[in-house]
Amino acid sequence: MRAAVRAALGDDRTPVLVACSGGADSIALAAATAFVAPRLGLCAGMITVDHGLQPGSAERARRVAAWGFELGLDPVQAATVTVAASGGPEAAARDARYAALDAAAETLDARLLLGHTLDDQAETVLLGLGRGSGPRSLAGMRPAAGRRLRPLLAVRRATTRQACADLDLPVWDDPHNTDPAFRRARLRHEALPVLEDVLGGGVAEALARTATLLRADLDALDAGAAGYPVDATLDVGPLADLPAALRSRVLRRWATAAGAGPLSAERTAALDTLVTDWRGQGPIELPGGVRVRRASGTLGVVSDDSREA
Amino acid sequence: MRAAVRAALGDDRTPVLVACSGGADSIALAAATAFVAPRLGLCAGMITVDHGLQPGSAERARRVAAWGFELGLDPVQAATVTVAASGGPEAAARDARYAALDAAAETLDARLLLGHTLDDQAETVLLGLGRGSGPRSLAGMRPAAGRRLRPLLAVRRATTRQACADLDLPVWDDPHNTDPAFRRARLRHEALPVLEDVLGGGVAEALARTATLLRADLDALDAGAAGYPVDATLDVGPLADLPAALRSRVLRRWATAAGAGPLSAERTAALDTLVTDWRGQGPIELPGGVRVRRASGTLGVVSDDSREA
Repeated sequence: MRAAVRAALGDDRTPVLVACSGGADSIALAAATAFVAPRLGLCAGMITVDHGLQPGSAERARRVAAWGFELGLDPVQAATVTVAASGGPEAAARDARYAALDAAAETLDARLLLGHTLDDQAETVLLGLGRGSGPRSLAGMRPAAGRRLRPLLAVRRATTRQACADLDLPVWDDPHNTDPAFRRARLRHEALPVLEDVLGGGVAEALARTATLLRADLDALDAGAAGYPVDATLDVGPLADLPAALRSRVLRRWATAAGAGPLSAERTAALDTLVTDWRGQGPIELPGGVRVRRASGTLGVVSDDSREA
Repeated sequence: MRAAVRAALGDDRTPVLVACSGGADSIALAAATAFVAPRLGLCAGMITVDHGLQPGSAERARRVAAWGFELGLDPVQAATVTVAASGGPEAAARDARYAALDAAAETLDARLLLGHTLDDQAETVLLGLGRGSGPRSLAGMRPAAGRRLRPLLAVRRATTRQACADLDLPVWDDPHNTDPAFRRARLRHEALPVLEDVLGGGVAEALARTATLLRADLDALDAGAAGYPVDATLDVGPLADLPAALRSRVLRRWATAAGAGPLSAERTAALDTLVTDWRGQGPIELPGGVRVRRASGTLGVVSDDSREA
């Protein structure tokens, strides 16, 4: 675990801030960071978030923070957030938590260390599969993205639990993690064990490995599409010569630049018919009230004035 | 179902051969083809395969064939295959079956119609996930590949069963499909229902949709890598500038051309270190006894003579 943290920190001297829920994963991460950071001459702090969703959550946050301070992490912060009542309970808590974590890291100009493990990655990929919103939803979490680092993404959850037991570290388990009302918890305790059994084991590792390879593939395609010149109007000719996967990305980029909301696969395919299946059809409606028309071999946004034209 | 078959057959006048196991999917496909093909002026035959693995399988094959003939399909063939004793029982039966099916289609110069449904596609994606051998293993089956066509790939299995009931078609269920010893059967009857429950339904459709999008993405990357010039030796400079996903594909193409066996993700990554993490290290061993060395800014295969060099 210490080696994983050391590798993730690299030669960068930017201070780090460990996000610690009190669960085994982030407790083990905090302990490893408290060991490694001073040896690298790095400042390392901790932040724990009180979602205010359960009785005693403030007390728990205080204890986690006090433990972090004893460990030598400094500064230590217990942030209280207000979880929005709208949306799913998991998503709302996550949004509120990340807003607080990112803001704290920004304020300290620190890197944010997150305790996600290989098992979390596998669950994320399966949740993405269930959404079916395309390959990117299977690509999982990045080991490094902006200020966020996930040093334990190749470490099994069982390893973090073992480390906590071996080092006699306190663990404040999140009751949400075993509450079957929560989708991720049910995935962990019901769906993944069945998949492991049926597929002959190694499923979590397989999911994580696939996510890593897939991320490289999708990054390459996104980079390819990002290099394609996009103006107010788009010439159909060169677009039609692109592979479908690049064309759909260029069309999405262009539509977003033209003011459209995020395009579903279905809307992207509809827009694509203006390029690849042109039979003189009318404009395509996109989210955000943007309408795209093909005329004289170019795609352009139809302004409201020309609605009747 | 008939519309799906008609769309898959298109304007091509090549005769078709329905592969029919006797199960609901391929019975419904055979019936729809027997209806559609004459109206398109197409010759349509049927082939059923006797794997010889169960008592009564020859009798079953004869009945399926006789039913196909009554339906108006012509020619009709019951092919007997010998399933290899080595390898997994599912894989061995599949290999023997496809060899017979492809050979028959080749002989007749016909397109081969396969009865795979959306549910089969979802199971294939999950099996690929379990292997973890990379994104391509999640891309599922192609609706059209060489002579093979899969007209029902967007049709649910429940729809083929319903069609058989509505049209009073006979169904000879494959006992393998419910034998829990078979991985695919367990996936179907144990793992997918749990996933559907936990993820809130729509999992099969989501898996199939993702496979389609992913296939387009991977095809674009493969096409990009196929366009990269590959000689006996490879210049490291331009290779290092490629996105990782393209570079890994070019390296795999080049290694295969140089005589190496199929490269795992791990071996590909090892080979990649000669390009991106060059510290004067020695040759990399690849499957098939191929050893690759970097010298003077190019990658080349080390011949046996120079082993001691």
